[in-house]
Amino acid sequence: MIAGIDIGGTTSKIGLVDDGKVIAQTRINTTGHTDDHAFANALAGEIQRLAASRGQTVSAVGIGAPNANQYTGIIEMAPNLPWKYDVPLARMIADRLGVPAVLGNDANAAALGEWRFGAGRGFNDLLVVTLGTGVGSGFIVNGQLVLGSAGNAGELGHMTLVIDGRPCTCGRKGCLEAYVSSRGMRQTYAELHGDLQVLKTEGVRCIADAAHEGNEAALLTFRRTVDWLAVGLANCVAATGPGRIVLFGGIARNGDLLMAPLRERFQDTLLNIYKGRVDLTVSALPDDDAAILGAAALTTL
Amino acid sequence: MIAGIDIGGTTSKIGLVDDGKVIAQTRINTTGHTDDHAFANALAGEIQRLAASRGQTVSAVGIGAPNANQYTGIIEMAPNLPWKYDVPLARMIADRLGVPAVLGNDANAAALGEWRFGAGRGFNDLLVVTLGTGVGSGFIVNGQLVLGSAGNAGELGHMTLVIDGRPCTCGRKGCLEAYVSSRGMRQTYAELHGDLQVLKTEGVRCIADAAHEGNEAALLTFRRTVDWLAVGLANCVAATGPGRIVLFGGIARNGDLLMAPLRERFQDTLLNIYKGRVDLTVSALPDDDAAILGAAALTTL
Repeated sequence: MIAGIDIGGTTSKIGLVDDGKVIAQTRINTTGHTDDHAFANALAGEIQRLAASRGQTVSAVGIGAPNANQYTGIIEMAPNLPWKYDVPLARMIADRLGVPAVLGNDANAAALGEWRFGAGRGFNDLLVVTLGTGVGSGFIVNGQLVLGSAGNAGELGHMTLVIDGRPCTCGRKGCLEAYVSSRGMRQTYAELHGDLQVLKTEGVRCIADAAHEGNEAALLTFRRTVDWLAVGLANCVAATGPGRIVLFGGIARNGDLLMAPLRERFQDTLLNIYKGRVDLTVSALPDDDAAILGAAALTTL
Repeated sequence: MIAGIDIGGTTSKIGLVDDGKVIAQTRINTTGHTDDHAFANALAGEIQRLAASRGQTVSAVGIGAPNANQYTGIIEMAPNLPWKYDVPLARMIADRLGVPAVLGNDANAAALGEWRFGAGRGFNDLLVVTLGTGVGSGFIVNGQLVLGSAGNAGELGHMTLVIDGRPCTCGRKGCLEAYVSSRGMRQTYAELHGDLQVLKTEGVRCIADAAHEGNEAALLTFRRTVDWLAVGLANCVAATGPGRIVLFGGIARNGDLLMAPLRERFQDTLLNIYKGRVDLTVSALPDDDAAILGAAALTTL
């Protein structure tokens, strides 16, 4: 039995995984703890409680988190987490539970989950893209997760889409994430709608609803998002040549507004030698399970 | 003893490789043969002649070529070669010599050469970029060459740098190759110089000479090339996280005009988590040897 933890900016999910299935899960707040040690105590306590309730023990723990470095087991000064310093969470959890613990980037964990248990099964070369508040990604190449020389590869969201383009939260300009994330889509809608107030009040769900009602700015927001995302994905294909790309996260659940036009636009955008050789699909895993399964899969690398 | 063949648009190099060194080499014209069979006969004949002159036999042949698919051993309708159809050159050479033959993309071969014998030795995660008439690249990830699901990964030159930008020879727009290749640099110079005639008469060497004499258009051509190349390389770092990038080809030999400012601009352009974790260097192999060594290295994958 393996425990999987997915650490988010607001809540953290904890689950027990057996034979590729989440058999028990719970969640705690990520914020509000005295410090990182108190947070680690809370995580370890929940795992022990979940395992005890099933009369079992946990043999390893996998943890997915933003800004996580898999080589060091450290969450490196994550801007969206409460601790603005390095947190060696893998060691902290391993010490508390007396079992091995592996920490990995949350987008890499999602990629692993899709590869082992979801829409990416059977692909030796795969790209998994998480479309959320930001844009995360995990590359599988030659049947292995790509970590890169420093343990932090796979940042599709911070590939430059537009030179000197929109400011990005990373401090640079023109990143893909500034265009095709939920934040980016809200900005596109605000620019087209001419009302910047909309930034605070309209989520992607609201833009989709407006598009279904025929709102021109909303429809155009999706069309531009499709064009931008097609370029970003085609650039990744030119790099590592995946046979499939899996899109994950709420934005990708917009079948008619996003996925259908994206499939067409993506093939148009590809270099001719790749056309028809890579497909686009949506995650086949329930959102809640995917993050936990992916985190657990980090222990089997 | 391994034979390495590098097929170019004008000439093809043939060499014998022993213990990581080119011990004999020759070249033939790529053009002017009756058909692809006559060309294969000429290549096989030169290998037999070179080997016989040393009193030895060849145990395998590696071939680097444009538009080569390593999985199939076929040169796929290469726009810059005389045969506008699929040429199964690996099988054609193997049949003629009775030894195994491996065909690979020429940029991948260059990457292998740098990785095994040159400036990339010891790096498990490496990117090798060839700056010539076009821009080629080969990615090494987790200690393996990246071929991708269809055998044609590693086309950095056709990653989009500018949406709806300059027309590229691939038929699309805004590819990195349209900006930072020798062709791209000539176009930049022509645009800045205002004299399109210059496209036909000025090579990159001439632009470099003009820059050294203080010509403003030439200096600005190099500055823009540096800015564009920094973005293209930083995008690759975000994808696969190499610990080193090796630049290969004549353009990269411009130390003061290109490499020195590029090293600085590249670090500025990187996402913060990669800064200082990847270096840029120039090929350590003689141009003629690198292509042959790389082609020969294809047989050892």
